[in-house]
Amino acid sequence: MAKQVNVGLIGYSFMGKAHSHAYKDMSFFFPEAAAVPVMKALCGRNKNNVKAAAAAFGWEGIETDWKKLIRRDDIDLIDVSTPGDSHAEIAIASAEAGKHVFCEKPLANNLAEARAMAAAVKKAKVKSMVAYNYRRVPAVALARQLIDEGRIGKIYHWRAVYLQDWIMDPNFPLVWRLQKEKAGSGPHGDLNAHIIDLARYLVGDIAEVTGMEETFIKERPLVEDINAALGASSGKSRKKGKVTVDDATLFLARFENGAIGSFEATRFAGGRRNGNWFEINGSKGSIAFNLEKMNELQYYNREDEAHIQGFREIIVNEGGAHPYMSHWWPPGHIIGWEHTFVHEVFDLMQAIAGKNKNLHPDFEEGVKDQAVLEAVSESIKNRSWVKVNEV
Amino acid sequence: MAKQVNVGLIGYSFMGKAHSHAYKDMSFFFPEAAAVPVMKALCGRNKNNVKAAAAAFGWEGIETDWKKLIRRDDIDLIDVSTPGDSHAEIAIASAEAGKHVFCEKPLANNLAEARAMAAAVKKAKVKSMVAYNYRRVPAVALARQLIDEGRIGKIYHWRAVYLQDWIMDPNFPLVWRLQKEKAGSGPHGDLNAHIIDLARYLVGDIAEVTGMEETFIKERPLVEDINAALGASSGKSRKKGKVTVDDATLFLARFENGAIGSFEATRFAGGRRNGNWFEINGSKGSIAFNLEKMNELQYYNREDEAHIQGFREIIVNEGGAHPYMSHWWPPGHIIGWEHTFVHEVFDLMQAIAGKNKNLHPDFEEGVKDQAVLEAVSESIKNRSWVKVNEV
Amino acid sequence: MAKQVNVGLIGYSFMGKAHSHAYKDMSFFFPEAAAVPVMKALCGRNKNNVKAAAAAFGWEGIETDWKKLIRRDDIDLIDVSTPGDSHAEIAIASAEAGKHVFCEKPLANNLAEARAMAAAVKKAKVKSMVAYNYRRVPAVALARQLIDEGRIGKIYHWRAVYLQDWIMDPNFPLVWRLQKEKAGSGPHGDLNAHIIDLARYLVGDIAEVTGMEETFIKERPLVEDINAALGASSGKSRKKGKVTVDDATLFLARFENGAIGSFEATRFAGGRRNGNWFEINGSKGSIAFNLEKMNELQYYNREDEAHIQGFREIIVNEGGAHPYMSHWWPPGHIIGWEHTFVHEVFDLMQAIAGKNKNLHPDFEEGVKDQAVLEAVSESIKNRSWVKVNEV
Amino acid sequence: MAKQVNVGLIGYSFMGKAHSHAYKDMSFFFPEAAAVPVMKALCGRNKNNVKAAAAAFGWEGIETDWKKLIRRDDIDLIDVSTPGDSHAEIAIASAEAGKHVFCEKPLANNLAEARAMAAAVKKAKVKSMVAYNYRRVPAVALARQLIDEGRIGKIYHWRAVYLQDWIMDPNFPLVWRLQKEKAGSGPHGDLNAHIIDLARYLVGDIAEVTGMEETFIKERPLVEDINAALGASSGKSRKKGKVTVDDATLFLARFENGAIGSFEATRFAGGRRNGNWFEINGSKGSIAFNLEKMNELQYYNREDEAHIQGFREIIVNEGGAHPYMSHWWPPGHIIGWEHTFVHEVFDLMQAIAGKNKNLHPDFEEGVKDQAVLEAVSESIKNRSWVKVNEV
Repeated sequence: MAKQVNVGLIGYSFMGKAHSHAYKDMSFFFPEAAAVPVMKALCGRNKNNVKAAAAAFGWEGIETDWKKLIRRDDIDLIDVSTPGDSHAEIAIASAEAGKHVFCEKPLANNLAEARAMAAAVKKAKVKSMVAYNYRRVPAVALARQLIDEGRIGKIYHWRAVYLQDWIMDPNFPLVWRLQKEKAGSGPHGDLNAHIIDLARYLVGDIAEVTGMEETFIKERPLVEDINAALGASSGKSRKKGKVTVDDATLFLARFENGAIGSFEATRFAGGRRNGNWFEINGSKGSIAFNLEKMNELQYYNREDEAHIQGFREIIVNEGGAHPYMSHWWPPGHIIGWEHTFVHEVFDLMQAIAGKNKNLHPDFEEGVKDQAVLEAVSESIKNRSWVKVNEV
Repeated sequence: MAKQVNVGLIGYSFMGKAHSHAYKDMSFFFPEAAAVPVMKALCGRNKNNVKAAAAAFGWEGIETDWKKLIRRDDIDLIDVSTPGDSHAEIAIASAEAGKHVFCEKPLANNLAEARAMAAAVKKAKVKSMVAYNYRRVPAVALARQLIDEGRIGKIYHWRAVYLQDWIMDPNFPLVWRLQKEKAGSGPHGDLNAHIIDLARYLVGDIAEVTGMEETFIKERPLVEDINAALGASSGKSRKKGKVTVDDATLFLARFENGAIGSFEATRFAGGRRNGNWFEINGSKGSIAFNLEKMNELQYYNREDEAHIQGFREIIVNEGGAHPYMSHWWPPGHIIGWEHTFVHEVFDLMQAIAGKNKNLHPDFEEGVKDQAVLEAVSESIKNRSWVKVNEV
Repeated sequence: MAKQVNVGLIGYSFMGKAHSHAYKDMSFFFPEAAAVPVMKALCGRNKNNVKAAAAAFGWEGIETDWKKLIRRDDIDLIDVSTPGDSHAEIAIASAEAGKHVFCEKPLANNLAEARAMAAAVKKAKVKSMVAYNYRRVPAVALARQLIDEGRIGKIYHWRAVYLQDWIMDPNFPLVWRLQKEKAGSGPHGDLNAHIIDLARYLVGDIAEVTGMEETFIKERPLVEDINAALGASSGKSRKKGKVTVDDATLFLARFENGAIGSFEATRFAGGRRNGNWFEINGSKGSIAFNLEKMNELQYYNREDEAHIQGFREIIVNEGGAHPYMSHWWPPGHIIGWEHTFVHEVFDLMQAIAGKNKNLHPDFEEGVKDQAVLEAVSESIKNRSWVKVNEV
Repeated sequence: MAKQVNVGLIGYSFMGKAHSHAYKDMSFFFPEAAAVPVMKALCGRNKNNVKAAAAAFGWEGIETDWKKLIRRDDIDLIDVSTPGDSHAEIAIASAEAGKHVFCEKPLANNLAEARAMAAAVKKAKVKSMVAYNYRRVPAVALARQLIDEGRIGKIYHWRAVYLQDWIMDPNFPLVWRLQKEKAGSGPHGDLNAHIIDLARYLVGDIAEVTGMEETFIKERPLVEDINAALGASSGKSRKKGKVTVDDATLFLARFENGAIGSFEATRFAGGRRNGNWFEINGSKGSIAFNLEKMNELQYYNREDEAHIQGFREIIVNEGGAHPYMSHWWPPGHIIGWEHTFVHEVFDLMQAIAGKNKNLHPDFEEGVKDQAVLEAVSESIKNRSWVKVNEV
């Protein structure tokens, strides 16, 4: 009989919806899980909205005060899917209340907070996990497996970009994600965080970095003036405010194992809606991935016979052969983005049930990702290289 | 308040699982649906198995006798996800009992049965739908939209293949799908059925056909001897039986509107796990699709300026722009194969609630698909062209 | 010291230009050839035009009467690059005059002529070659090598299309290629001829066929009225004539070795400028090719480990590894369409010098290709299957 | 009547061969050129070798002393296809002798030399050109055209890599290209030079840079010991020497117009034989290119209607529509790498004949490319940003 894990989720917009669906879907596809989530309570500040969301997503009840939620005895796991500026307070309090904590990425808006969070879960001896969901794309898990199998050899290069384009219109308004005090940063914390975590997962820890950033559109229509903003073509004057985060951040890196890497995050790559691409080149083989084609992995084997060498397109979709896929459909019946969260929840449940000793990335790993983000920011300020272990 | 539609599902293997998940998932993503499915009863012959499946999939109860199921007053919709040889009997009885009927494809194992089914639902004035789920791939729905918008012009060519490879191993055993008396046919009814339905949906009705078929592996290990079969390499002798269905069926076609087409279904295309590809060429544009990359549609506009003409790869994944996608995730966060069934269930629910006057494909359409399948079989027997309206 | 082979080329438009360039280029890239072509004389009916072409292409002299050309003692090889209706007369006379004959494809406009041509070269004991240049795309030669190495195993499927789109505009005029008495046929003889030859080269001889054809645009502006035609948008009435060839021809085939195949040639596939694609599926592997990406070959190995199976994209461009490529540039520095003719000329020179016992395709092979073309035409007339060895 | 331009070419290995072929081929495809090259003399130090090469490539005569060559009255143009350490001396002397100069890239091994070369041709009022041949890939020329047409808008991002893999084997010997005193640098001068030139051609001048480099294999078998080296697997000890150039160099850049960019050159990207890729994102559109698929250009139009947006694959191969292509073959009949040199020679001939006022890149441009290379090297030394106009 599977252990029941009562979940309280804080936040119900994009990520809250994705997490809710994963809790709802997990046991359908992973019936053998040693623990199953129970969708106990959804928490948000606006009662009517959270009520509606709870009904739509299938939560048993709601809370409007997260502090009350974490005091509830019937809650085992707190899921922090709020904006980054509240992660630390909620996660630390949850750990102190003895709850396991599952937190959206990046772990915090700065390194000090992240460290405090990791300390809190360590002290409380609860499970922690950061929701870097792309580790659970089967193609990414396969990439890791190929590396572990020795098929890539010594890694020389990491080359990653995370390209989006949703704010290219200069009349796109000044939402909270474009305000530093709320969002911490722009695509740096939002997108580079993902590819930093992937780089660390697949290549190893990063030793030093140097970066650059740019804000292409320096002012945007205020959100309160959004109706006027959307009526841009009418030629009316509009109030604007200053964009205080990056539109793009790039950096170069040296890994501790001698590999070198490049990273780029931007919201100004027209036509690239969700272009999380990476390539790894090693002494024995290469790997390439693109999130928009997330069921595929490109793999090159330097040791193939010369006349049949080439990148092969593996459709990572087969129960008998590929990570997580025995739970889904027959070969060639692809899965979607949301399923990465189902995999996360399964791994988390197994860990809580004591069946997965290698839950990752935990908050310690989240701290390491955060240190890289921070080192990059410092290098930009200094116009020089910065060692990650010195931030 | 959404109308509740009580569902009884017969069958719980591959398709039963896919349908169950769609019933479970629909209202999460389509909260505005005018009707919602209630997972009332799952039906199968083996009590223990069906019980376990019902628990895993989330059905309220079970039945072991479909006749009993369709007599239940609390059931509004019967979902027929059994093998093809039982479709007609179940669907007709369900209609006569006043239930709406949702039936897996192909509608029946022969045209006479299909016609009787269509007559039954017509007489009973219930809703009917055949589960040709690929009409509900957003990229396919977009293809239809581009055609309706006049972007393709007069259609000249339809070119489709449905390539799989799961029985290429000669030691793959003689499962029921390889036995004519049970399965009706091989990839012809299984895969050509899909691309015939897509062709009719996108291009129009088919006037005449000529085809060929082949069975490459003529004998296979009997299933009762499967253990021996899987120990093939040991060199032990194994009992074999005759394969009585096609391994591949190809045909040429002339559409009523003057377009011409080619179709191929095979289970012997190594490396093509689920290669449902089609291309349409019209006087103004072309379209190409591949199910293994189902979030993408290739579109060529003959009227683009000469120096910028080319097939564009549309990632059919955007709420504001693409069919069904406003219910899912932001651009570039792709969906999977199973979501096509969610779309089917939504459209079916809307129709039952009276909000969708154009539910398709209904059993009448299923009959037309069946007539093409049958005409091809006759053409193979006769080694000549056969008119579809004469079978 | 390389043997000198004096060439007389008849025809100087598209194919004449491509052949001329190959004669000019061959020894630059194949300095070790045992024989080298000497560009002796270019032949055409219009003295001024042929003179200009000879100067531009680098021919020593000209002739305006092919009969005079083939009587010249200083000519060793006649290259027949004229339209199909003159191939037989010229080639037979050339053979009778003791010249080697290199003839454009298809060998003739009908099977009887083709047979007479093959008999003539056989009787005269001269070398013959049909210019099916796609056998000499390195990727195609590699495909053959992979088959010969046993990597594909027993072949089950051949699937080929040759898609073009250059006459889709209904105002494209009624050029000679659209007139049966001059061109013999439309894309059937022009494009199916190529993929039939490739099928026979890679898979084997074809046993029986059944086909269909269509002419989408039945009347077109007369060429004499071309100016009016090009002024189409002005709404002026234009004189039109009947198109007497196919716009598209498709057929199904059974090979003598048990493989089955499909073929399609069309000039109405919008966006496909030169889409000569084929795919082969065998018991051990698969191969796919697209002429517009002619430096690439897709190869799938069914015997790869399960988790790394996938089509690999081989860039067929490496001296040490790929056919013909040691004569060109470093890996990844791709070659173009015209180079296939250089390879043809090299192979032909080697054969004339006695260094290549396996010159192919010779006129015997050209006859076999022609027989398939003719069997398809008969099947279209009869609306039934036709055995190739009975035409 | 076309002007005759007598050419003397110094160097006859890889680049010498490519240039020779271009001189030989140009008038075949560009018969309207206002000037035509005459292959007067090939120059190299080893008399026998240069003689053989001259015969193979079609040069009228040879020289073994370049100083003698440039004194010859019958030479109009000196082509410098030697290693970089001799460019300056030869080019300056040639200009002083009144010859036009066509020089391989990079212009020199350091910026001072490059500047002296530019000054020399300016003073002598002769034509100069640096052989950055990728400007003459039709797809690249089309990229420039799309930018000039305003289709890309304000450019935000340049993202380029030049990936090769030919020295990944640690037993690949210490050839001159791996020795700093001879080659100047590794892939930085060899490959970054190309993508810097493309960036400047397509985006504009570069303001500042910061970079990194790495040498993965620090020692390699000496060339004199090459036989032993190739017998590596025998386990014999081999003498090794130090690799003194980079194996990979990456840098970030800020353009003067506000765009930002990343660059990477490596010889350790397994499976990427000649992966010169770039992507440009602008306010109105995006462009992507890959040299291994050099007949293709990816183009995205942000202003397309929302539901049909996507990157389109333009096959840049059409006479009526695409740069240079009216001289080649029908659409879809692709050209190869070597043809870029034919285009270079044509543009150079037109300039010499006074018909092309915009010959590019001339030595002034070569200096600008060199300054970027040098600024990157300085930034690596300083571990900081370096302004290009301060080197």
